[in-house]
Amino acid sequence: MKIVVLAGGIGGARFLRGLRSAAPDAEITVIGNTGDDISLFGLRVCPDLDTVMYTLGGGINEEQGWGRADETFTVKEELAAYGVGPGWFGLGDRDFATHIVRTQMLAAGYPLSAVTEALCDRWKPGVRLIPMTDDQVETHVVIQDEKGRRAIHFQEWWVRLRASVPALSIAAIGAEESKPAPGVLEAIEAADVVLFPPSNPVVSIGTILAVPGIRDAVATRTVVGVSPIIGDAPVRGMADACLTAIGSETSARAVAELYGPGLLDGWLVDDADAEVRVPGVEVRPRPLLMTDEEATAAIARAALDLALELKRAEESKRAEENG
Amino acid sequence: MKIVVLAGGIGGARFLRGLRSAAPDAEITVIGNTGDDISLFGLRVCPDLDTVMYTLGGGINEEQGWGRADETFTVKEELAAYGVGPGWFGLGDRDFATHIVRTQMLAAGYPLSAVTEALCDRWKPGVRLIPMTDDQVETHVVIQDEKGRRAIHFQEWWVRLRASVPALSIAAIGAEESKPAPGVLEAIEAADVVLFPPSNPVVSIGTILAVPGIRDAVATRTVVGVSPIIGDAPVRGMADACLTAIGSETSARAVAELYGPGLLDGWLVDDADAEVRVPGVEVRPRPLLMTDEEATAAIARAALDLALELKRAEESKRAEENG
Repeated sequence: MKIVVLAGGIGGARFLRGLRSAAPDAEITVIGNTGDDISLFGLRVCPDLDTVMYTLGGGINEEQGWGRADETFTVKEELAAYGVGPGWFGLGDRDFATHIVRTQMLAAGYPLSAVTEALCDRWKPGVRLIPMTDDQVETHVVIQDEKGRRAIHFQEWWVRLRASVPALSIAAIGAEESKPAPGVLEAIEAADVVLFPPSNPVVSIGTILAVPGIRDAVATRTVVGVSPIIGDAPVRGMADACLTAIGSETSARAVAELYGPGLLDGWLVDDADAEVRVPGVEVRPRPLLMTDEEATAAIARAALDLALELKRAEESKRAEENG
Repeated sequence: MKIVVLAGGIGGARFLRGLRSAAPDAEITVIGNTGDDISLFGLRVCPDLDTVMYTLGGGINEEQGWGRADETFTVKEELAAYGVGPGWFGLGDRDFATHIVRTQMLAAGYPLSAVTEALCDRWKPGVRLIPMTDDQVETHVVIQDEKGRRAIHFQEWWVRLRASVPALSIAAIGAEESKPAPGVLEAIEAADVVLFPPSNPVVSIGTILAVPGIRDAVATRTVVGVSPIIGDAPVRGMADACLTAIGSETSARAVAELYGPGLLDGWLVDDADAEVRVPGVEVRPRPLLMTDEEATAAIARAALDLALELKRAEESKRAEENG
């Protein structure tokens, strides 16, 4: 069975670990968000790709969900001693090595997809991880503060400001001109099902879908998503701040409508949202808290089962229509 | 009093620490060798400049003479886990930060001299440290081994091979086309005396003198050198391998002759070499082992005293000739 997952960072990575465990024989391709990518200290940092790679490769800091386990911060402290920042972005010594290798390969002319494959040679995540694009796409956020109305990098808004200043708008700069990385469209077209983990619907999955060609390819598949919202709050992170920025309410229904019924076939919501209805989408309630790996695997299994059920139903329907 | 010192790495740095202590009120300008510079992991590494900066700034690993005190090697270990080398060059985590800052400033368009000044803002070495040139000069060594006759970077010969394979020749690639960095010639022209510490006469001081304009400017000053050779062996390091490569013998006399009597006015040799005579050069024997900071300061003081004595003698001679 071939599964494609569009993934952001922590939520996507944990979901993927559950999926890998729930469907050990499946061929899983992960289309990773690169809109969060940022250049720091002359190095190219890809937070979402790395979170997926480290989480599935056994190198993640489990408690915080991002960065490396047993991490130290000597390089960062020394950079600060030179007066070189930013200090708000937590790059550890182990993590630095990843960015040094990536930056060196990019400088040598390798596309990000080839770099990611090379990095995964070490981590053996058990999935095929492809960046959504080899082109540079960077999510920027327009805010209004004492310095006036201005656009800042998503990471500055998310990490430094903790999304505490309202986002007036969010834009994936470069997305319109970008092309899917080699293998992205092919993987989607060959997929039995496409899953959306409980990643941020605006700045993770939304950004991936903004790469021309990806949304259309996904729309041809059976797609099941896992709601990142329970009740009126994100399961984790600050997705509500992103939803507000684009004029959407924070609810499982609003996110499903955001993806659009032309895209989603099934939608897993939490039991707390059992009443949610979305036209054209099969909504299925179940506990959605990824409290541990077992619970996460059960959620992934449920998403996959729903997708296979909807796919079979669709195939039966087509067979009847043709017969 | 204005003193200019042409310096390589460890020997030069230690001599400078002694000189700073022996002449606390002097204005010391250090012209640093950059022929040892190398790009590793996409980062520009300047071993000799850093050794001077760390030694005079109190950050050096005293035992090994290069690199930072209390150093860790997490980044290097992680790079090795990605299969990225070379492993033979010992870049520590603290050291990495220096190279990251330098590389970022160079990429931003700052010349190495400005970068070095910015790095010294932190270390406050108590001297003005200027790279010999802002242009790229890299020392390469021609060797003959099982792979045939080939040129390798000086660091590979020096650090990886420990100079165990004979050097057929040594060349400072780019030196002929290089220009002295801003301030270099001005500092030499304004200097009361120029001192050569017991640095490597071929790949450190020799390389600095190979930058067009520097040798001529130095030749107009009173110049005193400290022999890096005692008897038939280097005080430290593997200068003998470099001397052999250029067809010179390893002796205090041979090094003085290498610099040439048109350049050197005085030459401090060890008591073991008291018999050495060099035409046109005032040779003065004394103990030359830099066993501790006190002994090193005494050597620096002796070099400075000899230089001032020769300068006064020269001035008297000129006054007599004119009178």
